[in-house]
Amino acid sequence: MAETGISLRELVDRLGGTLRGDAKDSEHRVTRVGTLGEARPDALSFLSNPHYRHLLANTRAGCVILAAADAEACPVPCIVTSNPYLYYARAALLICPPHPIGSGCHPQATVSSQAEIDPSAYISVGAVLGAGTKVGESVYIGPGCIIGERVRIGRGTRLNAGVTVIAEATIGEDCILHPGAVIGADGFGLAWNGSNWERVPQLGSVIIGNRVDVGANTTIDRGAIGNTVIEDDVKLDNLIQIGHNVCIGAHTAIAGCTGISGSSTVGRNCLIGGQVGIAGHLTIADGTVITGKTLVNHSIHRPGQYSGALPMDDSARWRRNSARFRRLEQLARRLRKLEQHDGDRDL
Amino acid sequence: MAETGISLRELVDRLGGTLRGDAKDSEHRVTRVGTLGEARPDALSFLSNPHYRHLLANTRAGCVILAAADAEACPVPCIVTSNPYLYYARAALLICPPHPIGSGCHPQATVSSQAEIDPSAYISVGAVLGAGTKVGESVYIGPGCIIGERVRIGRGTRLNAGVTVIAEATIGEDCILHPGAVIGADGFGLAWNGSNWERVPQLGSVIIGNRVDVGANTTIDRGAIGNTVIEDDVKLDNLIQIGHNVCIGAHTAIAGCTGISGSSTVGRNCLIGGQVGIAGHLTIADGTVITGKTLVNHSIHRPGQYSGALPMDDSARWRRNSARFRRLEQLARRLRKLEQHDGDRDL
Amino acid sequence: MAETGISLRELVDRLGGTLRGDAKDSEHRVTRVGTLGEARPDALSFLSNPHYRHLLANTRAGCVILAAADAEACPVPCIVTSNPYLYYARAALLICPPHPIGSGCHPQATVSSQAEIDPSAYISVGAVLGAGTKVGESVYIGPGCIIGERVRIGRGTRLNAGVTVIAEATIGEDCILHPGAVIGADGFGLAWNGSNWERVPQLGSVIIGNRVDVGANTTIDRGAIGNTVIEDDVKLDNLIQIGHNVCIGAHTAIAGCTGISGSSTVGRNCLIGGQVGIAGHLTIADGTVITGKTLVNHSIHRPGQYSGALPMDDSARWRRNSARFRRLEQLARRLRKLEQHDGDRDL
Repeated sequence: MAETGISLRELVDRLGGTLRGDAKDSEHRVTRVGTLGEARPDALSFLSNPHYRHLLANTRAGCVILAAADAEACPVPCIVTSNPYLYYARAALLICPPHPIGSGCHPQATVSSQAEIDPSAYISVGAVLGAGTKVGESVYIGPGCIIGERVRIGRGTRLNAGVTVIAEATIGEDCILHPGAVIGADGFGLAWNGSNWERVPQLGSVIIGNRVDVGANTTIDRGAIGNTVIEDDVKLDNLIQIGHNVCIGAHTAIAGCTGISGSSTVGRNCLIGGQVGIAGHLTIADGTVITGKTLVNHSIHRPGQYSGALPMDDSARWRRNSARFRRLEQLARRLRKLEQHDGDRDL
Repeated sequence: MAETGISLRELVDRLGGTLRGDAKDSEHRVTRVGTLGEARPDALSFLSNPHYRHLLANTRAGCVILAAADAEACPVPCIVTSNPYLYYARAALLICPPHPIGSGCHPQATVSSQAEIDPSAYISVGAVLGAGTKVGESVYIGPGCIIGERVRIGRGTRLNAGVTVIAEATIGEDCILHPGAVIGADGFGLAWNGSNWERVPQLGSVIIGNRVDVGANTTIDRGAIGNTVIEDDVKLDNLIQIGHNVCIGAHTAIAGCTGISGSSTVGRNCLIGGQVGIAGHLTIADGTVITGKTLVNHSIHRPGQYSGALPMDDSARWRRNSARFRRLEQLARRLRKLEQHDGDRDL
Repeated sequence: MAETGISLRELVDRLGGTLRGDAKDSEHRVTRVGTLGEARPDALSFLSNPHYRHLLANTRAGCVILAAADAEACPVPCIVTSNPYLYYARAALLICPPHPIGSGCHPQATVSSQAEIDPSAYISVGAVLGAGTKVGESVYIGPGCIIGERVRIGRGTRLNAGVTVIAEATIGEDCILHPGAVIGADGFGLAWNGSNWERVPQLGSVIIGNRVDVGANTTIDRGAIGNTVIEDDVKLDNLIQIGHNVCIGAHTAIAGCTGISGSSTVGRNCLIGGQVGIAGHLTIADGTVITGKTLVNHSIHRPGQYSGALPMDDSARWRRNSARFRRLEQLARRLRKLEQHDGDRDL
């Protein structure tokens, strides 16, 4: 019978790092992953967030991936590395590789005869693919996905289930789109004619780069004239709204429930927290960090960390302070007056 | 011909409370429900929110459910009870019982031959169920629901339409999942390797207890290592984001558009308002109340009511006060200086 | 060969405005639209937002639609009009008319034999329509839409893909519902019985007027007793939550990620920004403007512009000011004391 899992020696051989433990530990095999608190000897664990350091002393994990500073305190074998979280990500992929995906079209998929499907791709039950759509090598189109006409989907990309992609969008390679994501719905373009709204035709498309993740129920609108662009390695969490003609620069990660209004450009390597709101027609510099719930109502030209949400308080004190906030302008004027009076006295 | 509806006498017999009215009122039948303002004599109404008390004097309802203090002012028959809203909920269920659901599998459902479907369950058109999935007694799987492999769905649970459940999730009994809910998408786990994001394998699952409601387009991510856990009687409104490894304690109710970041634990019997944002790795005590739009950026160890959103104001005044807020630190320093000067004078 | 596109003369003949340019310019044809920065001579562009005025001098567009004040600065032919954005919307519709939609039912649609489908309507693959549902002239029901029983859908309305409409809802004429929209899920009605939540039956429906747009993954709950009402010409962006028994007045436009709690009434001709939260049981006057991210926690009886979100700042300064905010009440008291002391001195 083939041995399952992977030995600690093999892990270090393949991923680097330094194994600390007895001689025999290098042959110990881990077959699963676990948290410090719950892992048993057959599981690999890790310590990255200092918030969980107190769990180290009592862990029963088969091996813990950690930084050098934590090695002494570890009661079980450990692998020392400079970036334990990244090491864990790679080790977990070795220990629990994703299930292979078949190829072909489920008989209850509805694929246009004018679609081009690579023979190594898999199209699931209930999926719909329009004319002129090209699906690359090893692509997975999950159940109930609806793909319009002339869409391109690059090699290795997965649309997990119930993803909608409107006509003419382009999705790069190795992307993952989670259930309920909507790519290419009409943007919110309205012109007032004096008595009614008239719809402004939304004629652009959506261009998504490589290695992009789009979270569950996240929406990315098509451009009004040009395209909405999501560059390589952008990571979008769940329930995010991306307006028309937005551009998100490469490697930017955005947490859930954030909304970005039309025609704004977010730079590369930005970190945007959850429930952030970015107004329209703004530019955010590369490398900007925006903490959760911030309203971004002007462009950011200098990278840095920006915030805009007050920390909570108990409601009674909050109400008193809020009430004062409503009169803050007056308070400032009263102070000014007092300062002037004070200055006059000194004359 | 069978009489329709229910008499006031029957209501009181089954649900308790005290009927006030003439002798003949106890035989009056109500066949529908209505608001105080719109109900006619064939409808049952209720008064719970004092906001609507002014409508009582002119109501034409066949009967009003209300608290003792409001009985005198009621111009029509009424049933007095200590919790009118709860009484109304139960009465409405008697007057308008839900439609019975059939059993069996629609011929256009795609059910794995290795799924176990209780014969009393109903699987609707376009639904997909994977291998190893177990569907309990009287379960309803609505049109277009996509259920992965090895999922368990307990007795009496309803997935209304277009619900996605990823492999290996467990859903308890008597739950309702509304359209577009996504259970078990990958959490937002990313490790930076110096030049790119690498995905951290998301290997845990989702465990949902009994009598849980999940609103339309709400997303609950699978755990990264352990599970995401939603305990019994948790009620989630629409468009809520629950991150990986979150635990929501029993009986907690959360209003729409709220986001809870990964690995946070919300206690039991909490009330969380809409658009609240809870940061990651926090603990919220049992019985905590958080008002709408609050940013929760540290743990709450003492139950109580917490707030964090300023009340609106007209925009002109808001701008003036906001501008002062940006110089609040300076304002406080100026005040301090004045105090010192004032103290010096007194010497 | 038929000429494609439309000449500038034709545009002005059909839509009004004044063409400025050489005599021969009126025969110039535009076949597409483009932004000021990217349009080539075959494309029509426009200038409406002053933010983009700096692009005018170098535009290569075939024609620019603009206001009189910008005409002098335009290096290419232009059409002068009082509302360039509205003119552009109409011109774009002439240049890029929407694709005609066929009629009939796709063989993989599941349409109840008791549904009434106008022969000019089109029902796409995977769509489900319940008994008693009436679909009007030229309606388009996209792939994977799930329409319950006794729903009415008016002439010319489009449900683009994966839209869910619960039993008995009414949708007017010329509406567009974008993918993932959920119309008529149960509202968030719960009564506490002392130990558990009990569901309050949600018995009302949703009434949507004419020319209403509903964005991708937006949710509109059914009424608890009466109906949830969306009046004519209401425009809802993506990921909006509309609670039970809400009424949105005609011509009101609401940006993405906004949530409106149950039983609130928003007036006509309102503009509501993104990520706004409106508490329950409130009334918002006609013509009210609410800027993004505002918490509306009391009724607005006087139309005007209202705000409630602080502008962001760099995080270090933000933290200092936030800390002061937590002691704002004390700061105000200290100021008061100083004022009194100051007054005493003057005696």
